Amino acid sequence: MARIVLKFGGTSVGDIDRIKNVARKVEQEVKAGHQVAVVVSAMSGVTNQLVKYCNEIDKLHDAREYDAVVASGEQVTSGLLAVALQSLGIPARSWAGWQIPIRTDDTHGKARIVSIDTTEMEKSLQTGEVAVVAGFQGVSEHGRITTLGRGGSDTSAVALAAAVKADRCDIYTDVDGVYTTDPRIVTKARKLDKITYEEMLEMASQGAKVLQTRSVEMAMNHRVRVQVLSSFEAAAGSSLPGTLVVDEDEIVEKEVVSGIAYSRDEAKITLVGVADQPGVAAAIFGPLTDNAVNVDMIVQNVSEDGKSTDMTFTVGKADIARAVKVLEDAQSTLNYKRIISDANVVKVSVIGVGMRSHAGVAQRMFKALADKGINIQVISTSEIKISVLIAEEYAELALRALHTAYGLDAA
Amino acid sequence: MARIVLKFGGTSVGDIDRIKNVARKVEQEVKAGHQVAVVVSAMSGVTNQLVKYCNEIDKLHDAREYDAVVASGEQVTSGLLAVALQSLGIPARSWAGWQIPIRTDDTHGKARIVSIDTTEMEKSLQTGEVAVVAGFQGVSEHGRITTLGRGGSDTSAVALAAAVKADRCDIYTDVDGVYTTDPRIVTKARKLDKITYEEMLEMASQGAKVLQTRSVEMAMNHRVRVQVLSSFEAAAGSSLPGTLVVDEDEIVEKEVVSGIAYSRDEAKITLVGVADQPGVAAAIFGPLTDNAVNVDMIVQNVSEDGKSTDMTFTVGKADIARAVKVLEDAQSTLNYKRIISDANVVKVSVIGVGMRSHAGVAQRMFKALADKGINIQVISTSEIKISVLIAEEYAELALRALHTAYGLDAA
Repeated sequence: MARIVLKFGGTSVGDIDRIKNVARKVEQEVKAGHQVAVVVSAMSGVTNQLVKYCNEIDKLHDAREYDAVVASGEQVTSGLLAVALQSLGIPARSWAGWQIPIRTDDTHGKARIVSIDTTEMEKSLQTGEVAVVAGFQGVSEHGRITTLGRGGSDTSAVALAAAVKADRCDIYTDVDGVYTTDPRIVTKARKLDKITYEEMLEMASQGAKVLQTRSVEMAMNHRVRVQVLSSFEAAAGSSLPGTLVVDEDEIVEKEVVSGIAYSRDEAKITLVGVADQPGVAAAIFGPLTDNAVNVDMIVQNVSEDGKSTDMTFTVGKADIARAVKVLEDAQSTLNYKRIISDANVVKVSVIGVGMRSHAGVAQRMFKALADKGINIQVISTSEIKISVLIAEEYAELALRALHTAYGLDAA
Repeated sequence: MARIVLKFGGTSVGDIDRIKNVARKVEQEVKAGHQVAVVVSAMSGVTNQLVKYCNEIDKLHDAREYDAVVASGEQVTSGLLAVALQSLGIPARSWAGWQIPIRTDDTHGKARIVSIDTTEMEKSLQTGEVAVVAGFQGVSEHGRITTLGRGGSDTSAVALAAAVKADRCDIYTDVDGVYTTDPRIVTKARKLDKITYEEMLEMASQGAKVLQTRSVEMAMNHRVRVQVLSSFEAAAGSSLPGTLVVDEDEIVEKEVVSGIAYSRDEAKITLVGVADQPGVAAAIFGPLTDNAVNVDMIVQNVSEDGKSTDMTFTVGKADIARAVKVLEDAQSTLNYKRIISDANVVKVSVIGVGMRSHAGVAQRMFKALADKGINIQVISTSEIKISVLIAEEYAELALRALHTAYGLDAA
């Protein structure tokens, strides 16, 4: 007997028939003798509708009320799945975040889980009752409902798996695993059998949408065995394996590069002719931070005349208007000559733990892009990742070229 | 400065524009210097959709899960109204039933409020913050979400008004008050300025849908001054008074009959030829009660031969198939000759506290109906009410005739 946590996303519970399918999938695990907790998202479309309501009333809505409103979607699904399970003769009950409780800080809209009290749920699981948990939500110390940010149900599932010491955490989604890159763009993309936590973390934070970044972080910290699977193949009775996210030493044959991620959610800003002197970076990025603009890649050109230089950096596409406004307001202190912004960019990242021990990985990337005539605008690197910013129109071409260059193409 | 509780039903908060209208209505009360708590229903249609989901999965769904699912509708509206109020610059926060908490028994689906802990809300109201309360819901001692039954938000509002010692409780609805009878049927129906708790209770329990019966009961027990008003006229800026539900001694000029209610939710069952002996009533109604069939009016004819008699009674229309089945199963012990059921009946009731001190009220009813050739099938009376069961096709005719007979027609 194992204890497992299953998580089903919005499309997997998108209507009543799909909820019934999920119930049958859970039934298989129960009949296999396992103790099961299921984390569910809102039915697809529901969260968007609720967010739209909030914005229609006031774009600058109170995040506490936003949380109370949008968290209701998961409450509905958890109740409905509990009914569907009972209908199959399986004891089950729903748990809202506050009922467990899943305690979070009070950063409404993107709260972080502080602790999960599993006392009551533990009793329930021991009796063989399936715990159907509303994902994406928790409760603050003030007793207000909090939400964990988009994709937060992944984090709910991993956190719960850690808290109840689950043997594994299966994330059912609308893809059947983690791919070397987006299979909608690169037809030769391959599904990975295994990927390390570190790689998955980079994939997620560099744009791969299969898992919420924070959920991977949490899985890594608590060594939760996460598996990404397709809920639709599961419904069809298939038991095709998905992708297992594991510790590095569980992977014997390490690829130099495991995957290629991309993010269109980038915009580039260049300040032309800023003074090349100590403190200028702080003067630029201080006001941006104060206005909640996250800066990602940063490049400062070498100064030619020793007096002024150009500073280029990227921000989220949604933040570009705000970022430009902040910088324009600060013109008198920053003394730059010109500000150029460009939202038609894409960030492409190659990721792999093998990079640590292999030379020439970056060079291969640069050459592959150059061969296709793709100009690199900004470069940034980490221990297991190289990211480049290129013009958005080259996104697909770049992905395919890199996928081939690193030998990732399916046979 | 007064403290008031306002309640808005589903059509009053049916879309975002209407929620904004409600916010403006609340704003008026706040600007008048009052402390305000607002109880809201789910947006119209939402509860029905959620109930439909539960039924689609399993008609015999777990009432605890049903409650978790359907209570979400009010949670959404309370959050949205709080945002709308804040948008007008009015401090506000939403309260789910469990957050206050409104404690109920664990009769899921139709729970009764046990107590309301107003400690936290009291602090909030004292600071001038508007409390926006999700109606229709509470929390059981097991920490599960409960709901109070259809129309339960009325009860939430009255119970909250009693708990916070509100000066009045204004129930905004889609009609502008309590009428002498249904104005859609009787064009000469008049809006009542005042009605006593006892009369309102009879009106509600005899079919008038303007207030949930239990909310009137609670208002009567706690002497909460309830006012029924139109949310649409309020939105249009009108301040037409609605109907005030008050203590009997607040009404100087008592009408003999204040109103005429009707209910189409009736079905008649007659057992022909049951033994006329002690214990037969218990033998008939015991099995019905055991099967959760509520019996309303009961008539036992005088036995002509001293051996057998006919027993006629009414049940809710939804229960008729079940009631007949129960009685058929018990045929061998009850030994009746025949069972006749008829769903084409309507119950018409004349109601008024003045009946206590006036003779001939019933006689006037019987005569008015006889004059129109309407046959009375069953009669039942209470201290301030006379109900008759008639063929459904005569419903409108009977209402109009009685309205005229008791001098209720508008000039």
